[in-house]
Amino acid sequence: MDHGARFREARARLADSEADILLLSTGLDLPYLSGYTASPYERLTMLVLPESGDAVLVVPELEAPLVDTSDGLFGVRPWSETEDPTAIVADLVGASSVAAIGDETWSLFLMKLQAHMAKTRFVSATPLTRELRMRKGPDELARLRAAGAATDRVVAVIPTRQFAGRPEQAVAAEVAALVVEEGHDHSTFTIVASGPNSASPHHRTGERIMGEGDSIVIDFGGSLGGYQSDTTRSFHIGEPTQEVSEAFDVLFAAQRAAVAAVRPGAPCASIDRAARAVIEDAGYGDAFIHRTGHGIGLATHEEPYIVDGNEMPLEPTMAFSVEPGIYIPGRFGMRIEDIVAVTEDGVENYNNSARQLVVVG
Amino acid sequence: MDHGARFREARARLADSEADILLLSTGLDLPYLSGYTASPYERLTMLVLPESGDAVLVVPELEAPLVDTSDGLFGVRPWSETEDPTAIVADLVGASSVAAIGDETWSLFLMKLQAHMAKTRFVSATPLTRELRMRKGPDELARLRAAGAATDRVVAVIPTRQFAGRPEQAVAAEVAALVVEEGHDHSTFTIVASGPNSASPHHRTGERIMGEGDSIVIDFGGSLGGYQSDTTRSFHIGEPTQEVSEAFDVLFAAQRAAVAAVRPGAPCASIDRAARAVIEDAGYGDAFIHRTGHGIGLATHEEPYIVDGNEMPLEPTMAFSVEPGIYIPGRFGMRIEDIVAVTEDGVENYNNSARQLVVVG
Repeated sequence: MDHGARFREARARLADSEADILLLSTGLDLPYLSGYTASPYERLTMLVLPESGDAVLVVPELEAPLVDTSDGLFGVRPWSETEDPTAIVADLVGASSVAAIGDETWSLFLMKLQAHMAKTRFVSATPLTRELRMRKGPDELARLRAAGAATDRVVAVIPTRQFAGRPEQAVAAEVAALVVEEGHDHSTFTIVASGPNSASPHHRTGERIMGEGDSIVIDFGGSLGGYQSDTTRSFHIGEPTQEVSEAFDVLFAAQRAAVAAVRPGAPCASIDRAARAVIEDAGYGDAFIHRTGHGIGLATHEEPYIVDGNEMPLEPTMAFSVEPGIYIPGRFGMRIEDIVAVTEDGVENYNNSARQLVVVG
Repeated sequence: MDHGARFREARARLADSEADILLLSTGLDLPYLSGYTASPYERLTMLVLPESGDAVLVVPELEAPLVDTSDGLFGVRPWSETEDPTAIVADLVGASSVAAIGDETWSLFLMKLQAHMAKTRFVSATPLTRELRMRKGPDELARLRAAGAATDRVVAVIPTRQFAGRPEQAVAAEVAALVVEEGHDHSTFTIVASGPNSASPHHRTGERIMGEGDSIVIDFGGSLGGYQSDTTRSFHIGEPTQEVSEAFDVLFAAQRAAVAAVRPGAPCASIDRAARAVIEDAGYGDAFIHRTGHGIGLATHEEPYIVDGNEMPLEPTMAFSVEPGIYIPGRFGMRIEDIVAVTEDGVENYNNSARQLVVVG
């Protein structure tokens, strides 16, 4: 990754924005730009990147040995345990009138910065950083593609596992292990939602014993070279009822329609509308209770968001999930999720495993 | 855990503070009070807890099924993907003049709340919530004690492992597995820092191949029933040099002096001074580049911080780490860390494994 080019691009974007300085702490903007990741805790790490002039990484003294400054893009200001790092940042910022601060920065630190810098207005850094991070480079797309292929191999193995009579978390542990075996550096999350739990889109996998007649939603991902995968497939223990089969046919059509709508220039919201129209037309509109997707890259969730109201046009190299779902509270749920990337004239699927409802035992 | 009692205590503290409402999102204050943990991402979850009147959890609609409201302590306001959750929070807050907000809340959300609530001043929630979380109940101390005992068993096994010729991360993976085998629910972090890396207190474990003459610092922890362990022991591949041995004797004396200083009424800073005095007197003052410790509970790092300048007196049931270190850049480092709790008349060690420098192969 060419951090020098990213620094230059960030400075150019600063010059075009209302902000004149960028302040990045926890979250993925900092590693994207600099290669360094802030420890997410009560000791502040913050990159101070002005439109012009030297960039400085303010870092806890005990973590200063972790910082690689060999590319000369920024200086380092270690702070000792009895210093106030927000005062150091305020000093470095000086007379900035508008500072763009990373979204995930702890409020604790923002409030202290605001107290030190009464004349500075703080705005979100994301409108600036997303302009860099949304458009992926070939090396980034290669990692996303490889991570997607690794999850496809995991999906192929899942139906060989025993479901009935076992707790959700036992299958989740096996999926997490497969994620690593099939080529990720580590597993990031695994949802195994069974029976009524499958109607809870972000179910926290637990001890429920699965059994005949359960719908199963498995949503999982891992990290490969810093880039994330995120795939969902739906399963059923034993043959599904006609009600479940019919709902799944609707979901399948909705997901395919949404992927087919992906092309340069299409608004993000149009992908959401494509999926939602199929589901609403079939009478399941109230059962699709979340957006259709989210961007993916260093973060599992990042811009662009595929949601009603987001009229931003898609551009080549943007990568995101397409994941409609149908959830009938207390009874069953289902979701199909692929990662796709926008190409020069359409879409590339980074997930290509079978999307049908698979019967398992 | 009696969440009802915690809600009442939080309201009583609000009545005594400048703030009249508590806003809790990501971080451990929310699960401490309510049992519910906010997903740490771009969709806001926030508990709105006024001094009097109903408490409400604002939660993404797709995560509403996760919320257990059976104890009747708070209502739930699910927000759909096209609503602005910060506007909903602002509505619930109403005419509050001072709002206490959780430290880890994303700046993105704080800035939106500030925009919606121009007349409200925001302050950190920690001066309030720490008054609850710092003093542990018997059930909390039991879990911390059990987690400490589990790490003691891990420490006992570590010297049986092969170090020389293997990468740091291979030993780290074994330690993480032992953490679970010995009774934690999961591993939270593992640092294996070897040779010159041992002089980097928060070294990020990597591929360095360890060898004869290396100092090794192993710092690790896990979670047991939601409560954390955090222990450090120092090792050496082959017999240490006289220089390393002498430095270790100083460190050992410093750590024991600090633990011996723990008793009700002693200021937090006095524990730091007890360790630092021994190390400074021996001429290693510049090599001890961090505070002596941090509180522990639901979080690995929480109040009280054992740091110069913190004159808060210790009280019975407070639990924290005592972990002085000596770091010689580019050459070697060492640290000894125990979790201790303040008792009615002194201190209880939650870690009791051997603290000596252990020679490994």
